[in-house]
Amino acid sequence: MRLRSRHLVAIASLEPDEVELILDTAESFAEVGTREIKKVPTLRGKTVVNFFVEPSTRTRSSFELAEKRLSADAVNFSANSSSFVKGETLLDTARNLEAMVPDFIVIRHSEAGAPHFLARHSSCSIINAGDGAHEHPTQALLDAFTIRRRRPLRGLRVTIVGDILHSRVARSNILLLSKMGAQVTVCGPPSLMPPRIEALGCSATHDVDRSIEGADVVMALRLQLERMTRGYLPSLREYAKLYGLDSRRMQRAAPDAIVMHPGPMNRGVEITGDVADGERSVILEQVTNGVAVRMAVLYLLAGEVEREAAA
Amino acid sequence: MRLRSRHLVAIASLEPDEVELILDTAESFAEVGTREIKKVPTLRGKTVVNFFVEPSTRTRSSFELAEKRLSADAVNFSANSSSFVKGETLLDTARNLEAMVPDFIVIRHSEAGAPHFLARHSSCSIINAGDGAHEHPTQALLDAFTIRRRRPLRGLRVTIVGDILHSRVARSNILLLSKMGAQVTVCGPPSLMPPRIEALGCSATHDVDRSIEGADVVMALRLQLERMTRGYLPSLREYAKLYGLDSRRMQRAAPDAIVMHPGPMNRGVEITGDVADGERSVILEQVTNGVAVRMAVLYLLAGEVEREAAA
Amino acid sequence: MRLRSRHLVAIASLEPDEVELILDTAESFAEVGTREIKKVPTLRGKTVVNFFVEPSTRTRSSFELAEKRLSADAVNFSANSSSFVKGETLLDTARNLEAMVPDFIVIRHSEAGAPHFLARHSSCSIINAGDGAHEHPTQALLDAFTIRRRRPLRGLRVTIVGDILHSRVARSNILLLSKMGAQVTVCGPPSLMPPRIEALGCSATHDVDRSIEGADVVMALRLQLERMTRGYLPSLREYAKLYGLDSRRMQRAAPDAIVMHPGPMNRGVEITGDVADGERSVILEQVTNGVAVRMAVLYLLAGEVEREAAA
Repeated sequence: MRLRSRHLVAIASLEPDEVELILDTAESFAEVGTREIKKVPTLRGKTVVNFFVEPSTRTRSSFELAEKRLSADAVNFSANSSSFVKGETLLDTARNLEAMVPDFIVIRHSEAGAPHFLARHSSCSIINAGDGAHEHPTQALLDAFTIRRRRPLRGLRVTIVGDILHSRVARSNILLLSKMGAQVTVCGPPSLMPPRIEALGCSATHDVDRSIEGADVVMALRLQLERMTRGYLPSLREYAKLYGLDSRRMQRAAPDAIVMHPGPMNRGVEITGDVADGERSVILEQVTNGVAVRMAVLYLLAGEVEREAAA
Repeated sequence: MRLRSRHLVAIASLEPDEVELILDTAESFAEVGTREIKKVPTLRGKTVVNFFVEPSTRTRSSFELAEKRLSADAVNFSANSSSFVKGETLLDTARNLEAMVPDFIVIRHSEAGAPHFLARHSSCSIINAGDGAHEHPTQALLDAFTIRRRRPLRGLRVTIVGDILHSRVARSNILLLSKMGAQVTVCGPPSLMPPRIEALGCSATHDVDRSIEGADVVMALRLQLERMTRGYLPSLREYAKLYGLDSRRMQRAAPDAIVMHPGPMNRGVEITGDVADGERSVILEQVTNGVAVRMAVLYLLAGEVEREAAA
Repeated sequence: MRLRSRHLVAIASLEPDEVELILDTAESFAEVGTREIKKVPTLRGKTVVNFFVEPSTRTRSSFELAEKRLSADAVNFSANSSSFVKGETLLDTARNLEAMVPDFIVIRHSEAGAPHFLARHSSCSIINAGDGAHEHPTQALLDAFTIRRRRPLRGLRVTIVGDILHSRVARSNILLLSKMGAQVTVCGPPSLMPPRIEALGCSATHDVDRSIEGADVVMALRLQLERMTRGYLPSLREYAKLYGLDSRRMQRAAPDAIVMHPGPMNRGVEITGDVADGERSVILEQVTNGVAVRMAVLYLLAGEVEREAAA
């Protein structure tokens, strides 16, 4: 069993057995993360360029930790220090990065499709760390991993609440969870729901209480506060009241339901503090698992590259 | 002999024997720094997150060099690239960093108390790299180490001149040096002296010439130039004339007195170039010693963590 | 055979045999760059501070990759995070960096002469990564290396087109290529040609078509777009028409001529896309070779330091 591509650009192009492979491999790396020395020599001598054209704390550092735990060398690029300010095209910057012959480029970009574009033109492995409102595949994989450690994905009822329209996390999660046999419902205000979202394999509603009814997993999405100033929302207070996860609302979920959030959280807006910190919350487990899942992705893609080189 | 905590957040909570232990350990690492290969495998496989929410060149790089010389993996966070811009709370960011299971978090923060706050909530070791106007414990330790290499701390007369009010360096130095038996005098313009500073264990005066009289160590503090625009000071020229260290003023000190400055210096303001570069100056020794002292702190705290884990 | 200095601050101070030594050494490192594991233990335990006081993507990352492939530890400083914002002088910052006892400081600075200044005051090796409009020696070395892999430098006809006035790349290339026996012609608009440039060892013209006639190598320089707003140029369209490299113009060059550009490119301004991506272009080879050449420079300078230490 192996991955079919040396890139990870979208959940959309993964088969269910590839998802299983990544999640199973992540289990081994999660075990490494509990040892006193969390480092393995797996990718010694390999180089990863972390090419972040959009600011990020947790995803960049989660990748960087994963790289260092695998003994790879990490070189960071960020938008501010990049030559994008000098007007170079993405393709030229990517070709330049690639000409330095790294083994991986991890890219976050504000434009949907940027990682696909690179993968088409690149001889090294491309990993999408979030592209515009399109996909964030490692986030969906770490979410699936976190859920699967609690219960099987097949048949599970998962509800995603919030700004579905702008959320690459929602998109990747819908694709991955429905692919693995879960029933996904998305819920948000009419102005923040994309038309025809059901085509991704989920059901959609504006009624948050009904959407949570009996759910095994409830995932709140981060609300980009600038949405309000752009007229998507009347007020934060209104949003919190109508769509925020609070303990009263969570009573509608299954008795053993878990609560997730991709972070960073706006406490008191999309989720209340008591729910975020409560017994059902697996929000910090998501963060911990992110490192293990990214180690698994790097490890498996490295294997693909070697296989291609040997062929 | 060991440290009593796995955190280093304040000089205030160190006992004299712990200070001695750190300074003695730093001697060994200072010796490592004179070898052709300055790297030891002590912290191989350990991860340090350098979490700097306030800009810093020398402290961040001094820690990073210390970490790399101990073979630890260093991951840098800075305020600009952090999700603080996205409105997350310090506690949530800290919990997230900690959920990635680093071994150490080195934190610099503009708010006094931030490292204490983290230490209370964190399962990894927290090292304070400067919090607001509160404490900068590794600076005080490297200052004490630098002085101690020249002469014993007990009974030494140390004068600290400048903006005492806003200086975490002054505060940590007063606490550490008085704890170790030195007599500390602080001196600065009335607008830049905190009330009741004597409670920390020093004497205080506005008369700079008298404060330097017979001193074994004279430490000039950096003057934050923005203090003037905020009305604390009439003019730089006035400050330099009244409180700047110059060679004439230094003649009042003990014949073998040394001159210190935590950097970066405003030459011609709080210190003249000839004093900064003169025979009595140990300013660059402070920088060199900073790496050794930070290696000692990391090494000793790592021991504490192991001890706790074994218990 | 060895280098005569432990610094690399300018092509002007290299002898032809030293250039040959660097280029020959780079051949070995270029071979390392084709292996599956591109890392060698040559500089294990050595520390390099990358001190970039002017933004840079490719040069900083090329150096960082070179350092990591040699197993050195790299610590990055950039202008934004540096204490320059706090008003410290270059000399004081440099002394501070040096007091932390790194083995190398790689410096990029907007002021011509900054690396010389550091080298005069520094006990570690200084490498100039570009200083103002003065020199960019590793760029010229990688350009020479790229050309030499195609044909011998002696007697070669090289034309450099563009903003000669502000280009450290042009200056270092003229010095290096003329030193190695090539005939260099520079060409640009009158407002962007320095007076007496011929003194560096080249001929100069404003007639781009004649300058390219029979050339073996044509190098287009990046046009800093802000030149226009400062009145050096009437319009981009005008510049592209009069001085841009296009396929029609390239027909005047030797049949096997190669095209170079130091990047980042303004496609459609100083070079057309079809020329940049055409068969004659070695622009991406330049990037790849940059890592090997910088590895060679670091390796050879480390040898000088050891020799001095042993002496």
